[in-house]
Amino acid sequence: MLTNSPPAARLLDAFETVRARTEALAAPLSPEDQCVQTMPDVSPTKWHRAHTTWFWETFLLGEFNKDYKPFDPDFCYLFNSYYEQVGERHPRAERGQITRPSCSDVAAYRVYVDAAVRNFLSNAPDDLISAVTPIIELGVGHEEQHQELLLTDIKHVLSRNPLSPAAYPAPDSAPRENPDLTFTAVDGGLVETGHADDGFAYDNESPRHKVWLEPFALADRPVTNGDWLDFVQAGGYRTATLWLSDGWATVQADEWRAPLHWRERDGVWREFTLHGETDLDPAAPVCHISFYEAQAYAEWAGLRLPTEHEWEHAAAEKAGLDGRFMDAGQSAHPGPVPGGKSLAQMFGGVWEWTRSDYAPYPGFRTPDGAVGEYNGKFMCGQYVLRGGSCATPPGHVRRTYRNFFPPDARWQFSGVRMARDA
Amino acid sequence: MLTNSPPAARLLDAFETVRARTEALAAPLSPEDQCVQTMPDVSPTKWHRAHTTWFWETFLLGEFNKDYKPFDPDFCYLFNSYYEQVGERHPRAERGQITRPSCSDVAAYRVYVDAAVRNFLSNAPDDLISAVTPIIELGVGHEEQHQELLLTDIKHVLSRNPLSPAAYPAPDSAPRENPDLTFTAVDGGLVETGHADDGFAYDNESPRHKVWLEPFALADRPVTNGDWLDFVQAGGYRTATLWLSDGWATVQADEWRAPLHWRERDGVWREFTLHGETDLDPAAPVCHISFYEAQAYAEWAGLRLPTEHEWEHAAAEKAGLDGRFMDAGQSAHPGPVPGGKSLAQMFGGVWEWTRSDYAPYPGFRTPDGAVGEYNGKFMCGQYVLRGGSCATPPGHVRRTYRNFFPPDARWQFSGVRMARDA
Amino acid sequence: MLTNSPPAARLLDAFETVRARTEALAAPLSPEDQCVQTMPDVSPTKWHRAHTTWFWETFLLGEFNKDYKPFDPDFCYLFNSYYEQVGERHPRAERGQITRPSCSDVAAYRVYVDAAVRNFLSNAPDDLISAVTPIIELGVGHEEQHQELLLTDIKHVLSRNPLSPAAYPAPDSAPRENPDLTFTAVDGGLVETGHADDGFAYDNESPRHKVWLEPFALADRPVTNGDWLDFVQAGGYRTATLWLSDGWATVQADEWRAPLHWRERDGVWREFTLHGETDLDPAAPVCHISFYEAQAYAEWAGLRLPTEHEWEHAAAEKAGLDGRFMDAGQSAHPGPVPGGKSLAQMFGGVWEWTRSDYAPYPGFRTPDGAVGEYNGKFMCGQYVLRGGSCATPPGHVRRTYRNFFPPDARWQFSGVRMARDA
Amino acid sequence: MLTNSPPAARLLDAFETVRARTEALAAPLSPEDQCVQTMPDVSPTKWHRAHTTWFWETFLLGEFNKDYKPFDPDFCYLFNSYYEQVGERHPRAERGQITRPSCSDVAAYRVYVDAAVRNFLSNAPDDLISAVTPIIELGVGHEEQHQELLLTDIKHVLSRNPLSPAAYPAPDSAPRENPDLTFTAVDGGLVETGHADDGFAYDNESPRHKVWLEPFALADRPVTNGDWLDFVQAGGYRTATLWLSDGWATVQADEWRAPLHWRERDGVWREFTLHGETDLDPAAPVCHISFYEAQAYAEWAGLRLPTEHEWEHAAAEKAGLDGRFMDAGQSAHPGPVPGGKSLAQMFGGVWEWTRSDYAPYPGFRTPDGAVGEYNGKFMCGQYVLRGGSCATPPGHVRRTYRNFFPPDARWQFSGVRMARDA
Repeated sequence: MLTNSPPAARLLDAFETVRARTEALAAPLSPEDQCVQTMPDVSPTKWHRAHTTWFWETFLLGEFNKDYKPFDPDFCYLFNSYYEQVGERHPRAERGQITRPSCSDVAAYRVYVDAAVRNFLSNAPDDLISAVTPIIELGVGHEEQHQELLLTDIKHVLSRNPLSPAAYPAPDSAPRENPDLTFTAVDGGLVETGHADDGFAYDNESPRHKVWLEPFALADRPVTNGDWLDFVQAGGYRTATLWLSDGWATVQADEWRAPLHWRERDGVWREFTLHGETDLDPAAPVCHISFYEAQAYAEWAGLRLPTEHEWEHAAAEKAGLDGRFMDAGQSAHPGPVPGGKSLAQMFGGVWEWTRSDYAPYPGFRTPDGAVGEYNGKFMCGQYVLRGGSCATPPGHVRRTYRNFFPPDARWQFSGVRMARDA
Repeated sequence: MLTNSPPAARLLDAFETVRARTEALAAPLSPEDQCVQTMPDVSPTKWHRAHTTWFWETFLLGEFNKDYKPFDPDFCYLFNSYYEQVGERHPRAERGQITRPSCSDVAAYRVYVDAAVRNFLSNAPDDLISAVTPIIELGVGHEEQHQELLLTDIKHVLSRNPLSPAAYPAPDSAPRENPDLTFTAVDGGLVETGHADDGFAYDNESPRHKVWLEPFALADRPVTNGDWLDFVQAGGYRTATLWLSDGWATVQADEWRAPLHWRERDGVWREFTLHGETDLDPAAPVCHISFYEAQAYAEWAGLRLPTEHEWEHAAAEKAGLDGRFMDAGQSAHPGPVPGGKSLAQMFGGVWEWTRSDYAPYPGFRTPDGAVGEYNGKFMCGQYVLRGGSCATPPGHVRRTYRNFFPPDARWQFSGVRMARDA
Repeated sequence: MLTNSPPAARLLDAFETVRARTEALAAPLSPEDQCVQTMPDVSPTKWHRAHTTWFWETFLLGEFNKDYKPFDPDFCYLFNSYYEQVGERHPRAERGQITRPSCSDVAAYRVYVDAAVRNFLSNAPDDLISAVTPIIELGVGHEEQHQELLLTDIKHVLSRNPLSPAAYPAPDSAPRENPDLTFTAVDGGLVETGHADDGFAYDNESPRHKVWLEPFALADRPVTNGDWLDFVQAGGYRTATLWLSDGWATVQADEWRAPLHWRERDGVWREFTLHGETDLDPAAPVCHISFYEAQAYAEWAGLRLPTEHEWEHAAAEKAGLDGRFMDAGQSAHPGPVPGGKSLAQMFGGVWEWTRSDYAPYPGFRTPDGAVGEYNGKFMCGQYVLRGGSCATPPGHVRRTYRNFFPPDARWQFSGVRMARDA
Repeated sequence: MLTNSPPAARLLDAFETVRARTEALAAPLSPEDQCVQTMPDVSPTKWHRAHTTWFWETFLLGEFNKDYKPFDPDFCYLFNSYYEQVGERHPRAERGQITRPSCSDVAAYRVYVDAAVRNFLSNAPDDLISAVTPIIELGVGHEEQHQELLLTDIKHVLSRNPLSPAAYPAPDSAPRENPDLTFTAVDGGLVETGHADDGFAYDNESPRHKVWLEPFALADRPVTNGDWLDFVQAGGYRTATLWLSDGWATVQADEWRAPLHWRERDGVWREFTLHGETDLDPAAPVCHISFYEAQAYAEWAGLRLPTEHEWEHAAAEKAGLDGRFMDAGQSAHPGPVPGGKSLAQMFGGVWEWTRSDYAPYPGFRTPDGAVGEYNGKFMCGQYVLRGGSCATPPGHVRRTYRNFFPPDARWQFSGVRMARDA
C-alpha cells in the first residue's frame, strides 16, 4: 500500500469516504430497524448496505481481480437489485423477508469487500487503474444514491410506527416566517443542455445537445410549507378541476389530504421527520409531495412547473449550494429558505419536480453489458427531478443531474419550484 | 330550414355527416353487442351513441338554446364521460351494467337531439352561428373520435367470444409479400411544430412553437406483420434486456407473447379482426401493439422511435392519405403497405407510437369551462401517437393531430414506424 | 306422440311445465337485460336459458338418444357450468362477455331441444322411460333452481341501474303493521332427518339418519323489515361485538349499513325490488341478508339461529305453504307475514339461514359420473338455508331441501327465523 | 414470597413455567428473525412475546391489582390482538412494520410484568387467589397457544429465506419405512362429548352434550409422508374431481403441487423444517396440509375424515401421548409413527383435520366482557382440528380440545387421520 499512484490514491480516498458515510448513516439504527420493508418501493437498510457492497464485488472485484473469492456465493442472488444480465435475483418486494444474513453478517461482508478493494487499488498497475476508474466513479455515485434512499426508506419505516420514533437527534431550530415569493427572469434561445465537462456523470445526462427555450421566469425559492398550508386550507385536495386525471384518481383512492408524513390532530398540521414528529416550519420547503400534487398546486397558484431544461439553464453550476445538507452535522430535514436571494436553495433542500418526462437525450445509446442496464430501461412513465435534497450527499449534486420517479411517488425528499412564462 | 346561411349550411352538413356515420357503424351490431363492456377501458357501443348525443345536448343545445327541453334528465348523469364540472357522473367501469335505456331508447334519443340541432342551426342568426362554430367543430371532432373508439371497443368485445364472430363483412384480399425496409432522410434545424392554419384543431395542438431537431431518417413504411413475426420467433417476448423495465413487468404479468388479437394454434399465428379470424398478412402494418412493444422491437432492430416533432416535420400535410380507410367501403383492418414509396401510409393504416410523452406545448393554457377539461388533464403518463388508422374518419386526420394512450394500451389500432439518427 | 304411457306422459308434462315457466320469466326482459353480468356470482338470463337447455341436451339426449344431433357443438363449451368431467368450459366470470349467440339464437336452441325431448319421450319404450326418469326429475329440479337464480340475478343487474327499473309489474299492496313475535315450543330427543319417501330429492338430502336434539323453540315468523329497522337504528351495523369476526371484517370492507337493496335517502329507508323501488313493508320478512347479518341480529336480539335439523324437525311437510309465491300471479317479493299463526310462512317468503354448515350427511357418497358433481363438491365454507322463497317454484319446495350459500352472500331472497333454547 | 398458600404456589409455578418456556423458544432467534412478518397470518416472534405479556398486564394486573402501573401505555395499542372491547388496536397485517420497541425492550417488558405478577400472587389473600384462578389458567393456556404459533410463524419466516436457515439444531434421525395402515373399530350410539371434569378448558369445549354416532373405524396412524408421496405422484394435485370446488380453485390460484414446505429439485421431494431442509421421512406424519388437501386425499384413498365427535369418542384421555414433543429436548418436527399400535400418535405428532366445522356446542353462550371475545366470534368458516402437534406444549393437549383454522390454512403443523364407515 506504500507506493500508491496519485490516481489510485484519489480513487481509494473516494471509495473510503463513501463507504464510511454509509456506515455512519446506519449506525444509529437497530437490527430490527434495518431489516423490515414497509412497502415494495422501500428497501431495508441492511439490504442497502449489502447491495452497495455487492456492486463493488460484482463489477469491480469480480470483473477485474482474477483471484477474488466472493464472501458468500448466495449473496449475489440475494443482493442483486435489477441487473437482469447478472442472473436471477431475489424479488424486490420480498427483501424485508430475509432476516439472515443478519446486520452483523452484512457488516462482516462490508469489511471483507472493503479490504479486498483496498488491496486491489493499492496494488493495481496504472493501466488497470485507468481501466477501473469509470467503474469506481460509478460505484461511488451508486452508493451515494443508495445513501439517500437509505434515509428516505428508513423514514418510511419509522413513519409507520405509531410511536413516531426519531432516527437521528433533532437540530435546534425554530419555525420562521414564510418569505415572499419572487422570480428571476431568464432569457431563452437556443441553448445547450446535458453533461459537458470531463467530471463524472451518469449516462442519462448525455449527449449534450441543443434545445430551444422561450424566455421564462423561475421562482427564487421552492414552494414552502407555508404556501402549501394555504393550498390545503383552500381545499386544494378536494377540488377535482385542479388535478391531472390520474392525479385525482390517486387522491381519491389513497385518500390524500396533505403531503406524505404530514399529520393532523385537532386541526393542527404537524410533520413526521427523521427527528420524530415536529411543528411545521412555514419557511421550509414543502417535502414529500408527488408530481401530481406539484401540478395541482401550480394550477391553483396560476403558475407552472419548469421543464428540466429551463431548470438546468437557470441554475449556475452548483449555484447556491446553500441548502442544509445532512453531512454538515446538521438536519436530516430541509432547512428554511432565505428571503431576498435569487434562485435560493437550488441544491440541498428538496428535489424539485419538473414538467419533463424522463426520456433519452437525442443520440442516447444504452451502454453494453450489465452496467448498461443502469438508467435506460427506466425511461418511461417517470418525471425528472432536479437539484438535490438535504439527504443527498453534497458531492453527488450537479447542475445536469437527472433524478426521476413515477408521478405518484412521495417517499423521497421531493418538492417543487414554480415557473411562469415571461 | 329554407334560408340557411352558407356557414350554417356547412355546419349542418358536417353535423349530419358525422351523426349518420355513427349510426352506420353501429347498425350491424345487435342490442347485446352494443351493451356489454369487457374491460374498464372499453365503452359499450350504446354508450358511445348516447354520450356523443349528450355532448351536443349539453354543450350546444343546453348552452345556446334557451328553449331546449332535455330528452331525459337522467341521461346527463348516465352519459357524461369525464367532465367534472358538469356534475356527478356514472362510473366508467360500470357502463356495461346499464341495460336500460335500451338500444332503441338511445336511437330515439339521437333522433330527438338531431332534430333539435337541425332546428337550431336552421334558425340561428349569423352571430349565434359564429358563436357556436367552435363548439360544433369540437362536437364533430369529438364524435369522430368516438367512432374510432366504437370500432376498437366492439373489436375487444367480440374478441372475447370464443366463436370469433365478425362485425363487418370481410374484404377480398390475399396476403402479400413484406416489402423491403427503406428510409427517407430528413434535415433537422430550428423548425416549427403545432397547429398553424385556421382550420379546426384541438387545444393540445397549440401553440405553434419552435423546436430544434437534429437530422434523422424515417422509415418509408410502418413495421409490418412480417417484421413482427421475425421478432416473435427470435424470442423478442422472452428477452428481458430488450424491454423497458415497466414493459418487461407487463409482459410477465399479462403473459404477452404477441400483439393483442394475435392467436397461435399449432405454431401458426393468425389474427382476430373485425372481419373474424384471418391469416396474417405479412405486408400489413402490425397492429394492436403497446408503446412497450414498440420500444422493445426498436431495441431489437437497432433502431428507435421518432419523436412526435420529427414525425410531424417529416409528414407533408396529409401526405399520402394512401391508407385504406374504412369509410371507402373497404376494410376495418389496415391494408398492406406499398413497396418503393417514400413515407408511405403515414395516415390510414395504424396510429404510430412516438417517443414523446403527452405534455403541454410551451405556452399551453387550459381553456376555461367544462370544455377545457377536454385534453389538458390527461397530460401525464401517456405517449403520443401520430397519423391516423384505418378506423379513423378520413376527415379527422391531420399532420398536427396528437393522439395519446398509456404505454401498455393495445386495444387501439396502434403500430409503429422506425426512425434512426442521420 | 299418440300412445304415450302414463309415466312418460307425467314426465313430459313436468318437462313442458318447467320449460314454459323459464320462458315466461324471461319474456319481459330485453336482449340487453338478458346479456350482462354485474358480478361474478351473477349469470346472465340468456345464459340461464341456454345452460338449462344444455343440461337436457347433454345428460338426457346426449346419453340416451343415439341419433341426436346437437344444435351447435360450440354450445357445450359455452353453456357448461361446472361439470369438470364434461370437458373444458367457459369461465364463469366472463359469461357476460358473450354477446353471441343472441337471445333469439338461444330461443331457437330451446325450441330445438324441446322438440327433441318431446319426440324422445313420446317414442321411448317403457324400460327406457324408467332409465331416464331420475335424470328427468333431476333436470326439472335443476331448471327450477335456475328459475330462482334467474330472478335473483336479474334483480342484481337491474339494481345497478341508477334509474331503478322494474322487471315485473308491481302488485297492489300497502305496508302493514309488524306482528308480535311469538314462539312455538318443540320437543327434542332422538329424531330422524333427511329424505325419506320415494319422491324426488337431491343427493345431499340423504341418507336419512338419526340426530339428537335438545328441546327448543322456533319463532312463528321470520324476522321482518320492522324488526330489522330497529336493529339498523340501534347501531347494529356499527357495533363490532355483535358480529362474527369475518362478518365484521366484511361489514367494514364492503361498507354494509343495511341489507342489500335497501337504500337510504334523507334518513328514510326504502327497498329496491323486482317491481322497482318501494317503501319498506314492516310486516314483510327482511330479505337479502347474509349469514353474517343473521348472526349479528340474533346476538343483538338475545336469540339464536336454529340448526338445519331443528328447522326440519319443526316444519310439518310443506307446513304452511302460506307464502306468496311468484307463480300465483303475485309478487316477485316476499309478502307480509300473518300474525297469530304458529310457524307461519316457513315456505314461500324467504330462504331462512340456519346455524348449520353445509356438510355431507353420515354415510353420504358422491354418485359416480358427471351428475355426481352436482352437490358434494360444494360442501365446504357454506351454510344451509331452509324453506323456500317467493321466487322458488312452489313444486320445488320440501321440508328436507337444503339450499346453501357462503356466509357473505346477499343477492338471494335470504332471510332468517329466530330460535332459542327451551 | 415465603408464606404462599398452596393454590397460589401452584398458580405461580404454572405461570413461571409458561413464561420461561416462551423465552426459551425465542432465545435462538436474532432480533431480525423476531421482527418480520411474511404474511398477514404470521405474527413476529417479538409480537408474540409482547402480546402474551400484555394479556397478563391487562386481564390480571389491570383488573385485579389497583396499584399496578403499566410498563408503557402505548403497548396496549400495539400489542392488543383482537379484543375490540379493550379499545383500538394496531392492524394485524402491519405487525411486522413495528421495529421499536426492540427485542430488548420487549424482554424488559416481560421482566417487569413477571415481577409484578410474582409479587401479586405472593401477596394476594386467598379469596383474591380464587377470583383470579380462572384468568390465570386462561393466561397460561393463551400463552401456550402462542408458543405453538410462535413456532409455526417463525417457520414461515425462515422458509421464505432462500438459504433455508435452521432455527434449532437437528435431532439425529434417519428416515424409516412407512408402516401399514390399519384401523380400530369404534361402536357408535348416543355418546357424550365436550369438557366434563373440573380441569381447565376453553369455553368452546362446553357444554358437554349428547351426540348420536353410527359405528365407524379410525386409522391407527395419521397419513404419512410415504402415503402422501403416492398421492402426489398419482397426480392428486392435478385431478379436479378429487377436490372440493373451493379447494380446486385454491390449488389452481396458488399453484399448489405438494404440502407447504415441500420442495422438489430434480424430481426428488424434500422438506423445509425448523431444522433446515431435510429428506422426507416416509414414516412421519404428513404435515402442513390444508383441509382441502386432506379432503382430496380422502377422496383419492376411498376413505373419509372423521367428525370431531368421532375423534373425541375414539381417543382415550391423552391416549398415547406417544408423540415426540418438542419440549423433551427433541425435534421441532413430527417424529415417525410406530407400526402395529392401535390409535397411535393421537397427540404430539400433527393436528388432525376433522370434517366438522367450528360451531358452538348446543347451549353455548359467549361469556361477558373482553375475555368473552376469546372464541365465539371465530365460529364461522373454519374447521376443527383435534389432538395436538409436536409443537404443542404437552400440558396443553387434551381429548376435548378444539383447534380451528380456515380450510386453506397450511402454515400450522396440520395433518390428518382417515376414518371409514363400519
